[in-house]
Order: sequence, then structure tokens, then C-alpha cells
Amino acid sequence: MFYHKKELQYNAKPDKPDPVYAKKLQEVLGGQFGEITVAMQYLFQGWNCRGNEKYRDMLLDIGTEEIAHVEMLATMIAQLLDSAPVETQEEASQDPILDAVMGGMNPQHIIVSGLGAQPTDSAGYPWNSRYTIASGNLLADFRANLNAESQGRLQVVRLYESTTDHGVRDMLSFLIARDTMHQNQWMAAIEELEQQQSPVVPSTFPKEKEKQEVAYSFMNCSEGTKSQYGRWASGKSMDNQGTFEYDANPEPMGQAPSLNPAPHYIHDTPLFAENITNENK
Amino acid sequence: MFYHKKELQYNAKPDKPDPVYAKKLQEVLGGQFGEITVAMQYLFQGWNCRGNEKYRDMLLDIGTEEIAHVEMLATMIAQLLDSAPVETQEEASQDPILDAVMGGMNPQHIIVSGLGAQPTDSAGYPWNSRYTIASGNLLADFRANLNAESQGRLQVVRLYESTTDHGVRDMLSFLIARDTMHQNQWMAAIEELEQQQSPVVPSTFPKEKEKQEVAYSFMNCSEGTKSQYGRWASGKSMDNQGTFEYDANPEPMGQAPSLNPAPHYIHDTPLFAENITNENK
Amino acid sequence: MFYHKKELQYNAKPDKPDPVYAKKLQEVLGGQFGEITVAMQYLFQGWNCRGNEKYRDMLLDIGTEEIAHVEMLATMIAQLLDSAPVETQEEASQDPILDAVMGGMNPQHIIVSGLGAQPTDSAGYPWNSRYTIASGNLLADFRANLNAESQGRLQVVRLYESTTDHGVRDMLSFLIARDTMHQNQWMAAIEELEQQQSPVVPSTFPKEKEKQEVAYSFMNCSEGTKSQYGRWASGKSMDNQGTFEYDANPEPMGQAPSLNPAPHYIHDTPLFAENITNENK
Amino acid sequence: MFYHKKELQYNAKPDKPDPVYAKKLQEVLGGQFGEITVAMQYLFQGWNCRGNEKYRDMLLDIGTEEIAHVEMLATMIAQLLDSAPVETQEEASQDPILDAVMGGMNPQHIIVSGLGAQPTDSAGYPWNSRYTIASGNLLADFRANLNAESQGRLQVVRLYESTTDHGVRDMLSFLIARDTMHQNQWMAAIEELEQQQSPVVPSTFPKEKEKQEVAYSFMNCSEGTKSQYGRWASGKSMDNQGTFEYDANPEPMGQAPSLNPAPHYIHDTPLFAENITNENK
Amino acid sequence: MFYHKKELQYNAKPDKPDPVYAKKLQEVLGGQFGEITVAMQYLFQGWNCRGNEKYRDMLLDIGTEEIAHVEMLATMIAQLLDSAPVETQEEASQDPILDAVMGGMNPQHIIVSGLGAQPTDSAGYPWNSRYTIASGNLLADFRANLNAESQGRLQVVRLYESTTDHGVRDMLSFLIARDTMHQNQWMAAIEELEQQQSPVVPSTFPKEKEKQEVAYSFMNCSEGTKSQYGRWASGKSMDNQGTFEYDANPEPMGQAPSLNPAPHYIHDTPLFAENITNENK
Amino acid sequence: MFYHKKELQYNAKPDKPDPVYAKKLQEVLGGQFGEITVAMQYLFQGWNCRGNEKYRDMLLDIGTEEIAHVEMLATMIAQLLDSAPVETQEEASQDPILDAVMGGMNPQHIIVSGLGAQPTDSAGYPWNSRYTIASGNLLADFRANLNAESQGRLQVVRLYESTTDHGVRDMLSFLIARDTMHQNQWMAAIEELEQQQSPVVPSTFPKEKEKQEVAYSFMNCSEGTKSQYGRWASGKSMDNQGTFEYDANPEPMGQAPSLNPAPHYIHDTPLFAENITNENK
Repeated sequence: MFYHKKELQYNAKPDKPDPVYAKKLQEVLGGQFGEITVAMQYLFQGWNCRGNEKYRDMLLDIGTEEIAHVEMLATMIAQLLDSAPVETQEEASQDPILDAVMGGMNPQHIIVSGLGAQPTDSAGYPWNSRYTIASGNLLADFRANLNAESQGRLQVVRLYESTTDHGVRDMLSFLIARDTMHQNQWMAAIEELEQQQSPVVPSTFPKEKEKQEVAYSFMNCSEGTKSQYGRWASGKSMDNQGTFEYDANPEPMGQAPSLNPAPHYIHDTPLFAENITNENK
Repeated sequence: MFYHKKELQYNAKPDKPDPVYAKKLQEVLGGQFGEITVAMQYLFQGWNCRGNEKYRDMLLDIGTEEIAHVEMLATMIAQLLDSAPVETQEEASQDPILDAVMGGMNPQHIIVSGLGAQPTDSAGYPWNSRYTIASGNLLADFRANLNAESQGRLQVVRLYESTTDHGVRDMLSFLIARDTMHQNQWMAAIEELEQQQSPVVPSTFPKEKEKQEVAYSFMNCSEGTKSQYGRWASGKSMDNQGTFEYDANPEPMGQAPSLNPAPHYIHDTPLFAENITNENK
Repeated sequence: MFYHKKELQYNAKPDKPDPVYAKKLQEVLGGQFGEITVAMQYLFQGWNCRGNEKYRDMLLDIGTEEIAHVEMLATMIAQLLDSAPVETQEEASQDPILDAVMGGMNPQHIIVSGLGAQPTDSAGYPWNSRYTIASGNLLADFRANLNAESQGRLQVVRLYESTTDHGVRDMLSFLIARDTMHQNQWMAAIEELEQQQSPVVPSTFPKEKEKQEVAYSFMNCSEGTKSQYGRWASGKSMDNQGTFEYDANPEPMGQAPSLNPAPHYIHDTPLFAENITNENK
Repeated sequence: MFYHKKELQYNAKPDKPDPVYAKKLQEVLGGQFGEITVAMQYLFQGWNCRGNEKYRDMLLDIGTEEIAHVEMLATMIAQLLDSAPVETQEEASQDPILDAVMGGMNPQHIIVSGLGAQPTDSAGYPWNSRYTIASGNLLADFRANLNAESQGRLQVVRLYESTTDHGVRDMLSFLIARDTMHQNQWMAAIEELEQQQSPVVPSTFPKEKEKQEVAYSFMNCSEGTKSQYGRWASGKSMDNQGTFEYDANPEPMGQAPSLNPAPHYIHDTPLFAENITNENK
Repeated sequence: MFYHKKELQYNAKPDKPDPVYAKKLQEVLGGQFGEITVAMQYLFQGWNCRGNEKYRDMLLDIGTEEIAHVEMLATMIAQLLDSAPVETQEEASQDPILDAVMGGMNPQHIIVSGLGAQPTDSAGYPWNSRYTIASGNLLADFRANLNAESQGRLQVVRLYESTTDHGVRDMLSFLIARDTMHQNQWMAAIEELEQQQSPVVPSTFPKEKEKQEVAYSFMNCSEGTKSQYGRWASGKSMDNQGTFEYDANPEPMGQAPSLNPAPHYIHDTPLFAENITNENK
Repeated sequence: MFYHKKELQYNAKPDKPDPVYAKKLQEVLGGQFGEITVAMQYLFQGWNCRGNEKYRDMLLDIGTEEIAHVEMLATMIAQLLDSAPVETQEEASQDPILDAVMGGMNPQHIIVSGLGAQPTDSAGYPWNSRYTIASGNLLADFRANLNAESQGRLQVVRLYESTTDHGVRDMLSFLIARDTMHQNQWMAAIEELEQQQSPVVPSTFPKEKEKQEVAYSFMNCSEGTKSQYGRWASGKSMDNQGTFEYDANPEPMGQAPSLNPAPHYIHDTPLFAENITNENK
């Protein structure tokens, strides 16, 4: 069960409105790697966690914190939209510069949400839950989480560079620091799990059931051989179970496929005589 | 530029048709972490790569290979759909078991694709490009890739467990092995990058610009203290830049937000007298 | 800022697993009118609320409660998926009935989420934020909320009728009761607002600026006159500003549109001579 | 069956082209609460209506009218796009203001639709049918309809405020008036239905099957007590079946969930010894 | 403006309910090439038509007819859902066959739409407007229309084969016939347009501005030379403007791309020394 | 299996960066009719092709070539984004023109992809696989392909008109020429197929099973009779199987639908007495 306090986790006070920046800031609220994504992802991972209560507890801790980040960003965006120049558009036809500024806004911030934040990204695309994953395998999911925090911090940093508003930068410096912690946290949790099992996910699938011949070879499918100088092309494999090989000229190992004709009730194209008699194999 | 050979990278020959399994197998073809996802993700990362040609080459190698995996899965699914029982449905009203088997199919495999594979997942949801990321920051993206290969191998393993068809299992054992290689590959590439820069993405943002006070503290937002026993709650941080702390009772540090009323042209709810005079702060 | 307690708001304990029902129950978790929808809708309405702090407080109360409902449903679904018959599918080819039962499941509950709940609906379609609205106008939004609680309670009742599991029914009886409260709550809030302003949203747009002639007439665009017996076809209008009229034969009041040809750089179809000379008015 | 007359229901003649405004106007054509939404929603409600022919007739009347509104908006948008400055963009690099004006357009209005209207919203997001609902329960659906007309009229009013074009305003004044009628109409129909049944949807579910203890209590899940001053926190409930209560400190009533470990064929994270022996419950 | 008559364009009376078939029939109502698609596509093409009033008139004729097809299908689906076995599910746990039949239904037909049709496809995926095109170029669009009617008729035929219900087949035989007409109609309109302009769309782009060297050559990018036996590999081109050539070994004509490093404010991966000094060209 | 060469199929070298144009160019990369669409569409048609190996070979030839077009566009877009003015935005508040230029960009080109191309369209909407079709019927699918190449060439031509950059125009002139070839190619393949079967898809459905009475009549559902002057309204039908007729006043041929009331467990609106006794037929 959840509880809410009225105060924000950290201040969200812009120096002044900036409706064009409000559009951009939506990315880290409702985008692919925005705060809604991590909140939902961590909560569902926690709720679905089977055993290993330490991780369940940790996931619900951080999932709950992320809702507070959603709240901070929504509050900031609403303030950045204060006094968006709707009415003055009447004069904008005389003032093309003002028209242009409004062109940089998301029109839905006026028409749909009435100067409020939206659960969408900076292109106006709605958040959807296929951005998240809760697979039941914690090592797989913690890698998803480390990626989300890496992409998220990168995006916040780019947004930090795109403004000089001290209030906005102050809030972003808080979110950047939390992402530093969260990247560290997932690295720590991954290290714990990798020490208890193989780093290859899932660690419980019998090795003899996979095609060993191709389990450690790098295939050079794009002409050019710079890729052979990477760590992945020679030496001990990272899971200590094999040795990296470099396959400079990978060749097909399978059949040239030829499908059966469809039964008549499918009403595909009929087989042509030429195909039946000569060209068709 | 790309070239195609008619032979598959590895065999895709089922023992016999199984249209219900064909629906399930779609997940690793056109799902969130299916082969289309990794093919597109690696290719766009490669095409967008600025400098660091070794990584560009490697990304295009593996991206090109992944298209071959899409091809193998599509070919397998088409064969699993051979002779799907459309016409016999006329008798199915007398045979509820047959009706039930058909109930487990994706009806679009008959109506829309005429016994062909589709670029969708096992719920019939179309693939979309928001499944992918190419951020320009290779460390962030390689973490995305390691996650995708971890989720992908997990899903293929679950599908392996769900069939006894030897031909299907043979092909899956190949894909599982390639995912073993690809997890190893991304781990190797990540290690290379982390040795050249801080493991926190992006490594180039000045430390003094983030709110240091909260950059290494774990916040216990969900009652229960099992999370304090994790590696993330004490000791040296993973980036060697700080010390993990456990904040047992995190408190708000920000304001209780109060937004300005909207200008009249937004036509929000008017302020009520009661709010203006007494209750409203 | 948010806090979490480990206990659920109400019990979520099924008598026994039922993976087919788990698929259905997803509707009220991640569907159009599921608990994620109301949680997100109320929280964004609260965060975007400008003035009128009583409503902001209330919205954040109920939005926070709804996250607890998401948690209950996710927990229930995970338990309904316990022991989903993956492995036994090996025998299912001999047992078409078992195969059929599995046909009724969402295959992603095994392949993707590993027996966990997903933020999707009962058709496997992911939740997206276009299900929600926070317009800034509270009367409009409270009507959205009353609708969401009406659709939501209707769906939960239909799900209640579809199971005999006592544990599931116990939890649903709680959710049904909360929806009773929430419908009452939005009706109460709507009544408050309608007493302070006109019931027509928005109440602040000057009446003289709308085309008065058609503001209270019902237009009979579908042949058949049963609609004239409704309350909407005669008598005082509900906003007390007009009188309902019944227009039995509504006629066009506008022009027959004729658009200008496109400029050449658009490369539309050229105008044909016949159109230019005779037929093309 | 349907018939079409060439004339529009009302005039759609702008004073002059305005391609930036064309982008905005798309919202009420193809947005969440645009005219396509209400047309489709009312028609499907009518087609699915079981009995109660008066309502079926009425739904088909208004659904048919709404297609005429789609037509008016499409016609208007096409005219607003007349002479959009494609070619002159060659000079725009010298004229940043012109470039900016074009920046405010939806580029698809040139590239994709060739100066035509699109069934999308003002962010360029396509219309989809999850915007609509036809549940079979008329009271629930009429509340959806009242909401749609409230949000829709609000959006049209905001668009009215955003232009000074007399022709556009003339057409919008017509749509605003029709939305006035339609809000009145749904209020009238709702009143009719509420008088024949309880206002809680669905009215046919036995009261004793819902958890009575929580059917009328307001839960204060967000710190701060302003919400207790609302009509919803005390007094007779709106359905006259109970009395509102204010629960100042709502506590969990359910279990702390603990899920069973997944079977091995799911390949989740294995249980760690530490969880089995001490920390894990 | 539009008008509606209560009678259907043709009968929609199934012999008996069949909720599993109802799910399948959704494909041609709300799928990619269903009746909603063609209705919306033809209407928007008509509304956006600039000049050439004969085609505008024709498009609005057929677009209006297609709404009647949506109506027929919705009516049919609602009847196929009559008496869907919700309540008896209580006994279904004892009767796995019944459970299986219900497994073949779309659960939303009970939970969401209450035995009504939905504007979705047979996988439960909502209709969206990116299925349609109205480009302003009639020849391009008529080809889209011919494709839609071809795919649509193919799907209806497959559905015809999947049932023995005489009432359903009677209605489908009507739709199949109308699709025969509509394919003929678009072929006729295409022939008209091709006789007035080049068959290559758009016909108004100057030939000298395209790279003539590659305008008529077939490139053999997939090993295997069967494709050279096609009409497209030799002889006069279809537009009579060139001669088909077969390029057996197509080679790249462009550069090996090498992108500039990103500016520092983008925070991409830094350039590594090794790349700068030796490997990086 | 697939192979990649580092060189592009044709040059992609802009004269200079133009981040606003980069946004527009996304349309033909990741839009409805962009290069990803045709690449995926042709490859899936080829992989699903049953018999008729000549067409399979040809489809894989062109599908493979289209991936090279995706590569060229991605490379071009990345270069157009070189030096996008992020940092200088600090000064943009003093320079509204610069702000406006940035307003015309897709903000995700900076925040998400770090100056890289994205698999989205010019409105920022992600590519999805419902843009494609592979039905198993080659004549139907080749019509889809001819449409895709017609819409695609039209869009590239409009983009050509929208820039004066010689490098961009050079690359587009190549793509335009290839689309000329591909339109010719699909016309040739269609002619081949139509000569072997009836032009009505599918050609294998027995004529006597469709409702002959309406298979060749044009229905005038939109008032106005200009449509009768078209080739489709009189004369021999295009399939030589009938004669076009013009139905000036099409009338309903079906029933006025009246659905059964829903069973009580659906909890629809109850039947009202008035409906039962008098008005309800």
C-alpha cells in the first residue's frame, strides 16, 4: 500500500516560464527511458519477485522513489508552461518571431492539458508499457535497469546542457545524482548475482543443450576486419567457459528453404506451370 | 550495402507442423526483445557511430547476422503453419477439441498472412521501433544490448522447454548458443569501455555539477529493512567515487508545490471563493 | 513524495492457480479503464491542479490509493499463474484438452514475464497514456473520472461473474466496493462544481460567441423518430439556458466544398481537361 | 445504411491560409476527444445496443451527425493548408523567420498528405480506436459521452481563443454550440437512466456481494486534510445507500505478499541460500 | 453531411451464435484492411480532393457505402456473441472442453464490450489511422485502394472458408461481390489516369532530375538468378521510357561513411586513442 | 543469410548540416511508406513465398536492396544533424530566431539519439510492422508493393522540392530513379500474374458463391451524379466478367437490426418498461 506526502523529494522551481523547454523536458518524464518507465519497471519487478526478499524490498524502495521523480518533473513542467502565449497569438500574425516561439511548443500543452504536464515524451508520443520489462529473472532485469539508468542519466545531462535556468538546473543536478546512485546500485546488485551464478542469462540452462560450436565465435558479417581487434574476438570468454574465436568468413550452415504450397482454402497465388516444370527447383 | 545468400545461417526444419507453437515462437521474432529488435538496434547504432570505427565495424557485423536470425525464425514459423486446419473447421463444431486447438492459434496466421510468419509478437502486437535505442553513447547502448541478449536468451530457453519437436529444438539450440556469444561479446565490449572511462554514463559530465549529497545514498522508501543487507547499501561505491549510505527514513527536501491559476483563455475551473479566502493556503 | 508499506490494502489470495483467468484479470490492471489508468489520471490531475487545493488534496488521496489497487491485482495475477503448465506441454500433444487450456493463456505470461503480471490488458495490448486525461478543467476531468469508475466497476463485476474462486471473489468484492465509493465521490464533486458554475464545460466561454440557433436542437440524422421521445428532444434544457427542440429533417447549412488545385511542387494529380471545361463547375 | 449530401452541415471557409493553425486544429479532428472519436463511439454504441430502441435511435442520430463534423474540419484544414510554403523554402535559409513558420507546421501535411487533412491529432499521433468505448451498459457509456463532449468543447474553445480568423471562428462557434447541445443531451439521458436505476454502475450487482465496510469511506492516502472538507467526506452518499466517512489514517487490511518460487522450466533467478535460511521470512 | 437509414445494406443474420468466429470476423471490421480502413481512406481522399470533381464524387460514394459495411459487420458480430458462455464458466473447470472454447474467444468481447463488436482486429489490436493514406495524388491513392480491396477480399474469402453458417456465408457473399466491384472500379479509374499521364507516380517530376543510369536496372542482391527470368529483367519498361536491364553483380557506388565526432555537449563516447592514432582511418 | 559491405549503395553527402531538414527526411526512412517498410515487406513476402521460386528470388533481391536505402538515409540524417545548436541555446533566449530554428527540430534528435537517425517518421512516430503486408497471395501483395513505391516516390519528390542542398538532391535523385524502376518492376510482375489468372484477387474463389447481383454495380451513395461519367459506371468490367451498372438510388436490402437483450451476467442496462410495451417495436 502507498502513502503520499505533499512536499516534493527535491525542489522544482524554475526561474521563469519556458514553454519550449517544457516540451523537451517531457522526454525524461514520459519517454522510453523516462521516470514513468523506471517507476513501473521497478514496481512490477518487485511485485512479481518470487523469493529473494532482499531484492523485492530493494525494488519496491526504488520503484516508490521513482514515482516521486515523476511528480517533480510534472510540477516543473506545469510551471514552465505558466503564461504560455495563447491569447497573444492574435498579434502573432504581425509578429512572426512570436509565432515561431509558439511553433516550438507542443500544441497539446495548450489545447489538451491546459498548461499541465502530460505522460508523453518530447515528440508528443504517449508512454506505453512495452517500454518496461519484468521477466522474473533478476539478473536479466537488473541489466535492463542499468541500461535504463544509463540512458536516463544521459538524457538528463543533455537537457541540463540545453538550458541556463538555475532552478531547472538545480532540479536536474538532483536527478543526475540519483541516477549516479542508481547506476551504482544496479552494478552492485549485478555483481552480487553474477558471483552466485554464471553471468550468462539464464544460468540454469544445461550447456550441452546449446550448439557449442558457435557459442564463442565472432562472425565477420560486415566486410572490414577492424572488429577483430576487440576483446570479443580472442582470448578467454567473459564467462570463463570458452575461448573467443574470430570467424573471418562465416558461411551458411542451413538449408536453402523451400516451402510447401498452401492448401487451396488459403487462396494464395496458384503455382505456375513454369515453376512446376523447370525453374522451381 | 547488403547481400543475401539463399541458404539459412542454420537449419530451420521442424519435425511436423504445430500452429499453436508458431504463435508462441513469434515472440522471439517480432517481440520486444526479438530478433528484429536486435537487428535494427545494432544497425542503427552502427550507422550512427561517430568515430571509434572498431565498434562501428563490430556493430554492423552483428546487426547483419541478426537479420539472418529473423530469416530463420520466419522460415520455421511458415513451416509450423503448414496445413493449419482451416477447412476442417467445418467439422470442428462437432469436434470441440479441434476447435480448441484452433483457439490457440493466432487467427491472423490464417486470415492475414495466409500461413506466413508476421513481424509481430506472440500476442499479435506489431513490432515497433521504440523497442530500440541508439543513443550515440556506446557504453549506454552496449548495456542495452547486453540486456536485450539476456532477455532474448531467456525467452528462447523458455520456448525450448515448451516443445519436444527435435527440429525446432535444434534450431533453438543454435540461437541459444549465439546469444551466449553475444552476451559475452557485450560484456567484453563493456569492460573495454569501462576501463577507459568511469562506469557511470555519461562519464564526461562534471562531478561538481551534480548534487553530491545524494549521489551515493540508498533511500528506504518501502517499509522493511531487508534492502540494507545488499551490496548497494554500504561500502565503496562501484565507481570508486563514493561510499554507499543507507537512508532509513528519507524525508522530502523540496517544496509543497502550489501552481499559479491558469490565465482565463485556458478556461480551467475558476478559483472558488473558499479556496481564495481560507483553505487555499 | 511517496512511501510504501509491504502489506496490501486488502487480501489477494486465490484458492488455486488459474492461468486462463489470469489473462482475463489483466483487463482491470492494464486495460483502458484498469487501475493503472485511474492511478495515472488522478495523479496527473492532482499535480497539474492550479489553485483549488481541496481538489488537489483529494486527487492525490485517491490517486495514491489506486497504486495500491494495481499492486493487489499484480499480486493476484502472479499467484494465478503459479505452476502454469509449461513443461507438461511435452505431453500435451497427446492430450489435446491440456493443449487447449494452454491455448487460453496469454503466452507472454510464460515467455516474457515468467509467471508474472504485466502492465497490459486481457488482449495483451500494452497500457498507454492516451487512456488518461488531465485537462486543467476539473468539471470536465471529474466527468472523465466518473466514467472511468463506471466502466471499471462494470468490468470487475463481469470478471466476478466469470469465476467461482472464493479468494478471487473476495478481492473483487473489495474493489467493487471501492468503485462504489469512487463513483459516489465523483458524483459529489461534480455536484459541488455544477452548483458554482454552469454544467456546460467550459462555463467561462461567452454565450454570445456560440451559434445560438443550434445550441439546443436535436437533429434527426438517422431515419426513425423514436429519439424524439427522449428527455433531450423537448422541454427545458439541462443547463436552464434554453429549450430543447427536435429537428426532424436537418438540412445542410454550409457550402458544397471545392478546394483549390495544389501548387505544382506538391505533385498531385494534374487537373484533367474535362474537369476544367465542363464538369468541374 | 448511410447517405451523403455534398453540402457541409455548416460553413467551413477560412479568411486565409494558416498552415500552423492547421496543425493545431487537427486535435479536434483526430485527437483523443476529436470528432472521429465521438462519431465512432456513438455509432458502435448504437449498433451494439440491445433493446431500448429509443436510445439506439438517438445514438445513431448523433453518431451520423458527428461524421459531418469530421467532414467540416477536414475541409477547413485542407483550406488552411492552401499554398503552404514548400518551394519558397529554397529561400528560407536566407530568411530564418520563414523557416521558423514552417517549423511550426506538421511536415506530414506536405510530405504525406499533400496539403490535405489527416486523421491524426495535433502532435501527429494517429487516431486509434482505444479512444472509444461501447460497453453495452448505457449509463456507463453516456457518462463517457458526457466526458467526451466536455473535453471536446473545452478544446474547441481553446482553439477559438488561438485565432482571429473570422471564418475559422464562425465554424468553431457552430461546433461549440453543438457541443452545448450534446452535453445537455447526455445530461438529459443520464438523468432518465438514473431515475430508473441506481446511479452506481452497474445497478444490477447485488449489494451484499460487495465489501460494504469500504463502500462509502474516503481514504486520506495523501498527507494533508483539506480533502475532508469536500461533499464526498461526510453526509449522505449520492446513491442514498450509505453515509460518507472520512478515514484519516487508512491502514493495510491485507497480507504482506510472498510468492512461491517459479518452477525450474521458467529459469528465474535461483533462490539464494541467504534467502532460504535467514532473511527470507 | 450524412444521413442514416435503419435498414442494413444487406442482411446480417447468423444461423446461430459462434463467439469464437466473432473474434475472427473482427479482422475485416477493424483490421489493417478492414471496412473501417476503406471507409476512412475513401472519405479523406474525397474531402482532400483538389479539383477533378468526378473523382471526389466517386470517392464520397464509395466511402459512404463502406460505413454501411462496417455497420453490417458490427451487427453480425453482436449476434454471433449472443449468449457467450460467461456464467457457465463456473462449471467449466469441470469441463475443460468448454473452457477451451472460451479460450478461443477474445475476452474483451465479454469484459469490455459486453457482447458487442469492437473497432479492433482479430488479435484484439485497435484500429489506427496509419492504416490509411490520402496523399493528394489520385493515381498513387487509387493503387492503395486497389491493394486494400484485394487484401480485403482475400481475407473475407478466407473467413468464408472457415465457417459453415449459412447466414454468415450469405452476408460474406455480398461483401465478396462488392469487393469484386470495387477492385474493378479502381482498375478502371487507374486505367483512366494512366492514359492521361505516365504510370510512374508522380508523373510531373522532370525526368532529367532523376539518376537515369539506375532507373531501369534490376539489381541481383540475393544470390541466385531465377529473378532474371521475370518480365522486369529485360524488354521495354512498363512506362515505355526505358529498357529493363539485369545487373547480376551490383556494386556499391557510394562512400564508406565516416561521421564526425559529436560535440562535447552531446556526451557521446569519447574517441579512444587507438582510434585516433592507427585504426581509425 | 546476409552480408554487408562498408560502402553505401550511392553517395550520401550533404553540402552542409540542416537539422530541420533532418526531421523531415525521417519520413522516408521510418514512415508509413519509408524504406524500412519496403525492406521488411519484401523480405517477409519472400520468406513466406510458397513455390513460385522466381518471385521468391526477386523479392529477396529487392528486399535486400532496400536495407541499403535505409542505410543511406540514416547516414545522411546523421550528417544533417552535425553541429545541431544545443549549447548555443543558452544564447537563444536572447535570439528568438535561433530559438525558432531549434523549434523546427525533433528534440529527440538531440536528447535521445545524440545526433543520430531514428527509425521514426517526420512526426516522431515510431515505425511499426502494421505498415507491412505479406498475405501469401502474390498478386495482392504486388499491388501493395506498387502502392508503396508510388507513395514513396511521391514523398521523396516532395522532399527534393523542399531543399536546395546539392548533396541531398543528388542522393534523392538516386532514390527517385530506383523508385521508377521499382514501380516498373511491380507493374511488370502484376501484368505477368494477371495474364495467368483473373485480375480479381483471389482468382480461385468460385464465382457462383458470390452475390452476382451486386458484383458490377456502382452505388451512388453521395448525392451528385458526376461519378456516373467514370469508366467504372458503364461498359465492360475490367475483369471481362460483367458489365458495369450505375445504381442512382441504392436502397437497403437488409433487415432493420434488433439485437437480443444481454443475459443478466453481462450487467447491461435493463430493458425499460416503455421499451418493452410500446416503443420497442
